[in-house]
Amino acid sequence: MAKELLEGNAAIAEAAIRAGLEAFFGYPITPQTEVLEVLSGRLLEEGRVFLQAESEIASINMVYGSACTGTRVMTSSSSPGISLMQEGLSYIACSEVPAVVINVMRGGPGLGNIQPSQGDYFQAVKGAGHGDFHSIVLAPATVQECIDLVTLAFDLADKYRTICMVVADGNIGQIMEPAELPPFRPVRTAAEKAQLSWALTGAHDRRHRVITSLYLGAEKLEAVNLRLQAKLRRIEQNEVRYKEYETDGADLLLVAFGTVGRICQTVTRQARAEGIRVGLLRPVTLWPFPSARIAELAPQVKQILVVEMNAGQMVEDVRLAVAGRTPVDFYGRLGGIVPFPDEILSQVRAFAPQTEPGATK
Amino acid sequence: MAKELLEGNAAIAEAAIRAGLEAFFGYPITPQTEVLEVLSGRLLEEGRVFLQAESEIASINMVYGSACTGTRVMTSSSSPGISLMQEGLSYIACSEVPAVVINVMRGGPGLGNIQPSQGDYFQAVKGAGHGDFHSIVLAPATVQECIDLVTLAFDLADKYRTICMVVADGNIGQIMEPAELPPFRPVRTAAEKAQLSWALTGAHDRRHRVITSLYLGAEKLEAVNLRLQAKLRRIEQNEVRYKEYETDGADLLLVAFGTVGRICQTVTRQARAEGIRVGLLRPVTLWPFPSARIAELAPQVKQILVVEMNAGQMVEDVRLAVAGRTPVDFYGRLGGIVPFPDEILSQVRAFAPQTEPGATK
Amino acid sequence: MAKELLEGNAAIAEAAIRAGLEAFFGYPITPQTEVLEVLSGRLLEEGRVFLQAESEIASINMVYGSACTGTRVMTSSSSPGISLMQEGLSYIACSEVPAVVINVMRGGPGLGNIQPSQGDYFQAVKGAGHGDFHSIVLAPATVQECIDLVTLAFDLADKYRTICMVVADGNIGQIMEPAELPPFRPVRTAAEKAQLSWALTGAHDRRHRVITSLYLGAEKLEAVNLRLQAKLRRIEQNEVRYKEYETDGADLLLVAFGTVGRICQTVTRQARAEGIRVGLLRPVTLWPFPSARIAELAPQVKQILVVEMNAGQMVEDVRLAVAGRTPVDFYGRLGGIVPFPDEILSQVRAFAPQTEPGATK
Amino acid sequence: MAKELLEGNAAIAEAAIRAGLEAFFGYPITPQTEVLEVLSGRLLEEGRVFLQAESEIASINMVYGSACTGTRVMTSSSSPGISLMQEGLSYIACSEVPAVVINVMRGGPGLGNIQPSQGDYFQAVKGAGHGDFHSIVLAPATVQECIDLVTLAFDLADKYRTICMVVADGNIGQIMEPAELPPFRPVRTAAEKAQLSWALTGAHDRRHRVITSLYLGAEKLEAVNLRLQAKLRRIEQNEVRYKEYETDGADLLLVAFGTVGRICQTVTRQARAEGIRVGLLRPVTLWPFPSARIAELAPQVKQILVVEMNAGQMVEDVRLAVAGRTPVDFYGRLGGIVPFPDEILSQVRAFAPQTEPGATK
Repeated sequence: MAKELLEGNAAIAEAAIRAGLEAFFGYPITPQTEVLEVLSGRLLEEGRVFLQAESEIASINMVYGSACTGTRVMTSSSSPGISLMQEGLSYIACSEVPAVVINVMRGGPGLGNIQPSQGDYFQAVKGAGHGDFHSIVLAPATVQECIDLVTLAFDLADKYRTICMVVADGNIGQIMEPAELPPFRPVRTAAEKAQLSWALTGAHDRRHRVITSLYLGAEKLEAVNLRLQAKLRRIEQNEVRYKEYETDGADLLLVAFGTVGRICQTVTRQARAEGIRVGLLRPVTLWPFPSARIAELAPQVKQILVVEMNAGQMVEDVRLAVAGRTPVDFYGRLGGIVPFPDEILSQVRAFAPQTEPGATK
Repeated sequence: MAKELLEGNAAIAEAAIRAGLEAFFGYPITPQTEVLEVLSGRLLEEGRVFLQAESEIASINMVYGSACTGTRVMTSSSSPGISLMQEGLSYIACSEVPAVVINVMRGGPGLGNIQPSQGDYFQAVKGAGHGDFHSIVLAPATVQECIDLVTLAFDLADKYRTICMVVADGNIGQIMEPAELPPFRPVRTAAEKAQLSWALTGAHDRRHRVITSLYLGAEKLEAVNLRLQAKLRRIEQNEVRYKEYETDGADLLLVAFGTVGRICQTVTRQARAEGIRVGLLRPVTLWPFPSARIAELAPQVKQILVVEMNAGQMVEDVRLAVAGRTPVDFYGRLGGIVPFPDEILSQVRAFAPQTEPGATK
Repeated sequence: MAKELLEGNAAIAEAAIRAGLEAFFGYPITPQTEVLEVLSGRLLEEGRVFLQAESEIASINMVYGSACTGTRVMTSSSSPGISLMQEGLSYIACSEVPAVVINVMRGGPGLGNIQPSQGDYFQAVKGAGHGDFHSIVLAPATVQECIDLVTLAFDLADKYRTICMVVADGNIGQIMEPAELPPFRPVRTAAEKAQLSWALTGAHDRRHRVITSLYLGAEKLEAVNLRLQAKLRRIEQNEVRYKEYETDGADLLLVAFGTVGRICQTVTRQARAEGIRVGLLRPVTLWPFPSARIAELAPQVKQILVVEMNAGQMVEDVRLAVAGRTPVDFYGRLGGIVPFPDEILSQVRAFAPQTEPGATK
Repeated sequence: MAKELLEGNAAIAEAAIRAGLEAFFGYPITPQTEVLEVLSGRLLEEGRVFLQAESEIASINMVYGSACTGTRVMTSSSSPGISLMQEGLSYIACSEVPAVVINVMRGGPGLGNIQPSQGDYFQAVKGAGHGDFHSIVLAPATVQECIDLVTLAFDLADKYRTICMVVADGNIGQIMEPAELPPFRPVRTAAEKAQLSWALTGAHDRRHRVITSLYLGAEKLEAVNLRLQAKLRRIEQNEVRYKEYETDGADLLLVAFGTVGRICQTVTRQARAEGIRVGLLRPVTLWPFPSARIAELAPQVKQILVVEMNAGQMVEDVRLAVAGRTPVDFYGRLGGIVPFPDEILSQVRAFAPQTEPGATK
């Protein structure tokens, strides 16, 4: 298929449809409203289900119910709306049903504003709801990655019967870039759903199944948690994804994700042009985090600089990976401000003065 | 005042009243329902406000509104109910009004069960709502600490105009112990409220004030965030609290909070009696975390063992503090199971074999 | 099609599907839960939409939204649930979109009980929501009428772009009787919806349409109301339906609807057998009410007795029709009690002593 | 106390406070928002409870709960908001607890507009919620009556343990007139509440009480209903209130309530000045309706003309009272239009041509 010019939010919507999304439940909130807008038209065209619920709480609980039936299902919101879904997310996680959640993050806390932000990193990777669980968290940096990671999100959600969250921001959601959409996958048929070992598809010729997150006995709930934790370990082993740029022989390692990760690619190129030995690691999975690779790189560099559009959240996961072996510093902008390459570059220059005089690659 | 026999949840309620709690909004959920039950009677006796709202979302937004008027206000819930409050918490944090929140944690994720748990550590200290903020988080280990920390919670909430969360569990909430209640402080009078520089007390003889979490301009919202972050730094500097037991000359440092922290005190005593050089650091503030003290102790011990009633959450903050200087291990029970001293002790024996021969039990 | 043994609630559900019901939104409440139960399975089999909303308020607003698109839509509930829909019903009425609402009435007021009742007559025919409007209200007395009137309800709702309510009670809902189902009508196709002059089907090749109940100018809102009233007059002229039994030469006219109407048929037969000249008029449309026919019959009889399973509601409409020309009396049972034929018969005997000695038809 | 210039909505609020209103729960909606606005300030000044709930449904259920404790309680809304309260009203009615409800009616149906209307007559007097009950309904026509009838509403609600609704419209709510407020009555003390035979005041030294609207047995629920109906009959006997103007020797009897009732006073004066023998009966209680007095007047006049700001609702109650003895006609305006005296006068002239020749003042 040829590339076409696509807006990030529209690309997310269309990619979901092509990945076999059968039912969407959501509530509009800037800066992700285009996801709903596109889906409200396209899903009906495809004869599938689009429902604007009366709130984010209704949405996530409809996602939960729908997921239980083996339906490929998604919701989408932005920061405050995702906060409203925390109880439902925890129920889904414990019930081990697949669901895809999009968070097009905006400036916070509170109502904040509708500018791009990465302020919900902690919520996404650590504390999405009460109890012990993690969602798989994917962070696209381009419109093409929006498409690819939404597709992947459905696959991983199905594979691990887990929540897979895609965290974008208003910047990625609203830029337009050439990108290629994958071919259409059909929605899951009734027969295919009936083959699923766990889905509630009507107990016509088999025993009833129960999907629940309630386990009154402590022993039973511990067993459920141990199974959940074992699954999380498998995910950590198999699903770490990241991109590296110029990390070979770097003195300074930048670590950044999403929109800032992309800006740091520019910064890396510019810094290298100035002769500064900079590399970039851009996590694509925020959970599981590429800790092993960062641990590996840490002793090879003199300094690590984490750049985020928040007050410093992913930097904790970097520090955990580095475990004191290399200094880790942080540069961030807040309130919906996207840092310019120049301001990051001047941070880079301060940290890693030009080490190869005259170097212009 | 003399000691009396008090149940943890009842102590939380009565301590709140004596700290000047003027209005409570909440919704019943096991295992914290006794907090509501006691307050529903006692607040009315005192001529104050008790309101059982129609949901946790209603509760936290009433807390928000009430806090804006300079009223000392509190809500209380357990894990799923606290998840439902995440949006409201983020609004309160950004609006910088004081509020006290009690979370009597239960087994999760999802509905889980009603047994004691520490599974909401991450949610409380990292990701309580979207955006960049932290609540002050206090973790009592005894009924007396329930009283003292609830009292402190109101003071810190007022001092920093912030959310102060007290995280207990069903165990602390329901044990009975002798404890001493403080004297009564009066509720804030209308005149005192009128003195508050920020509260909405009626703009009779002054300009209108606005309390909001909405700042559409990115520059403005960044400024708000920088002020918030500066406040968080002040809290980190001034408000770290923890307890130490036998840390002098310890080979193995236990780190544990709340109910398990208390059990680890017993374990420490027993291990010392066996001649094992064990010490215990019990964080009282989970945020700000006693990272500096742990960093200080880390090189003095051979091993650190973090014990939690979850799958390993606080252990990350310990590792961040230790930064690779000492091995950090973890032991946890899940699903609402409270570990017995014996099982922790056998962990301790495995890590730190008896180092003082002849030690008399 | 041959007759089969059907339960009233199931018959309502299946008749709705055969009438072309495309989407159902509802919330379970005894004694109408079987309607949802059957639809939840059958609609999915037919590839249509069944959604259990989070409340009756959500349900009726989804009905409203769905109706705006030209979709044949229905909700179903019982007394308290219908009260929760009053705002939504008023919005739908003003917006002039077709919707079918089933009320399987239970004992009231309040939670009351789950026994059969006719206590919502006033609400259905007079005050369903604020403002000036009437729904068409149909009252089946048999399982066959459940089928026929649900089918009719969809036709009338479409024809007049109005709410058509079917009021049954737990008795009709749960009895089993032989009845014949009509053939399947297809759901409205997208092309057929696009032909509707008012529906929101996507303004691809035409000007946008607006469906609203908000008309800020008083002149405009009066014009809307005059159009509504003119429509109500047309309905009154064309859609009155009732059944008569033995009214020729009757001295005593019974008027009763639904379950009691059916019991009064037995009473009429028994009374006639005793030589009492009793006739029965059973309104099938409660609104529009068969006032003209009652006015016509009034001077021909000596006495009218209205029998209801409530404290006397339809009796007002009978009195309005009679306008003083004949004495109108009332007999009713309350609280979910269905009167026995014998007790009505003794009322009949008291009012109209045997006038044909020895008469045994 | 001297007269002062008061706005209708403000007068309602202040009268409620002086009548001993202890707690108000409501949600803003034009054209009654001033009631909330005044109460939000005044109730706090008086140390009582004002709570803006999250919806009208929350409001009416808080009213229900609060009323159960013997607290004098009120809510206030406008047409769509009152529709949302129908379930709660039915619960309160069955539970027989006193509550005052203000409906400042606006143009309907649906969202309609915010102009004055009388479109909720049916809802108020017939079908306020499911099941068999009536609220007492009072209709003020002046600011002074707003005060007097709100005061009376609390007395009647208490006396009969019933809902007492005051139906005004935006016109009465927003005009300013001189009126006299009554002296302050204290709120009910805890000791006085404890004396109430039914209130839930804490079962310290007596058996527990239960307030419910759930009576699963049909016999029991019928007994409850018979008690309710007996109470309604007592109210009908004792509490009918109306005003008459020039009814002696009238040929044409106008019947009108509230704002139109007041306009019809002007019309009556003008018509009399023209020599037309017109009288006016203005119902002050819409339920119980002054049927007996209208029945008495009916044969004395040649014609009755009912004037309403709706499509003809109270006219049914007039016709029921008249029972065919006199022609009853109707004149109404819709959509929030308040009829001018002149247009009613020309109706009057058409009906009752000048009967006293020479009379032109």
